[in-house]
Amino acid sequence: MVDEVILLDYWPIMFCMRVSIALAKKGLQYESREADMWDKIPTLIHNGKPVCESLIAVQYIDEIWSAKAPLLPSDPHERAQARLWAEFVDKKIFEDSAWIWRGIDVEASKKRLIESLKVLEAELGDKACFGGNKLGLVDIALVTFYSCIEAECSSLVAWGRRCVQENESVAKSLPDSHKIYQHVMEMRRNKFSLE
Amino acid sequence: MVDEVILLDYWPIMFCMRVSIALAKKGLQYESREADMWDKIPTLIHNGKPVCESLIAVQYIDEIWSAKAPLLPSDPHERAQARLWAEFVDKKIFEDSAWIWRGIDVEASKKRLIESLKVLEAELGDKACFGGNKLGLVDIALVTFYSCIEAECSSLVAWGRRCVQENESVAKSLPDSHKIYQHVMEMRRNKFSLE
Repeated sequence: MVDEVILLDYWPIMFCMRVSIALAKKGLQYESREADMWDKIPTLIHNGKPVCESLIAVQYIDEIWSAKAPLLPSDPHERAQARLWAEFVDKKIFEDSAWIWRGIDVEASKKRLIESLKVLEAELGDKACFGGNKLGLVDIALVTFYSCIEAECSSLVAWGRRCVQENESVAKSLPDSHKIYQHVMEMRRNKFSLE
Repeated sequence: MVDEVILLDYWPIMFCMRVSIALAKKGLQYESREADMWDKIPTLIHNGKPVCESLIAVQYIDEIWSAKAPLLPSDPHERAQARLWAEFVDKKIFEDSAWIWRGIDVEASKKRLIESLKVLEAELGDKACFGGNKLGLVDIALVTFYSCIEAECSSLVAWGRRCVQENESVAKSLPDSHKIYQHVMEMRRNKFSLE
């Protein structure tokens, strides 16, 4: 049986990009269906069965198509660490970025964001990727925030550039940053009445 | 080599109870070390290596000691669903319970809490446990909120009672609800100046 893979997708949403990157790393053909951004997205539908939440979907993809391009380490302790750092990205980086672009408590949020990025930078150390030499769960979680990474975090900036340049799956899944910027500005105006 | 398992624990914290239940289900001997509640808890230390975050630690325990009492389903889709519901518990049930006991926005939080419990009740359906017939990740995530489950959710109340009565691991890991109540009241007074 040929697998039927559908992604309920909405291009500016970084959680959707994560699933796109994972599918591309595995070399999978899939149908991208545009959903409304207030729908439950991303939803991966594999042979009719839905899987929600981006990090859960990335793990699912890795478990189902385990033979090619592993996204989680095989060692249980390293796997737990990867899950922890991916959660850190969701809790810390996502939250403060969201405050900033909504224009709430901007200066303090920016300070916290930089602190969290510094923590991630220390964790990256001199590795090429968070996943060692190959793109993994943490890289996929964080690379979708590439455009938010501050110039002050120079080794993270270099990591982001490497992720994009060395992984076609990433380059193809991240939309043009100018297009994202325009979308965010439109959202700020229309949904939050901000200029 | 005999495994050395240490749990940095603080008895009233439900996230710690989750790890205790998982360790008990696997029949593991471990040393419980009392940590301060503002420390990074729970932390499981297995042969010197730390694993933080309760749901990540439960999955780690299940992966390392996979032969006895599996806590996650073997099917990848069911595993993804279990992770999703466990996250639902953390995001929805935890958040609203926290508002309630801090005395913030109590009525609205209570309403949302009951709505979320109803969603979980529908997911439980007529199964004995969220994990089917056996206690699994979602049961472990939710049973630590047992004392918050509202009387209006009668089949969840029955589920909680079953979890406690049929699983020694749960009964031993959940502290006396009167003791928890006293602790919460003390916290409200000392940390949040509430009566």
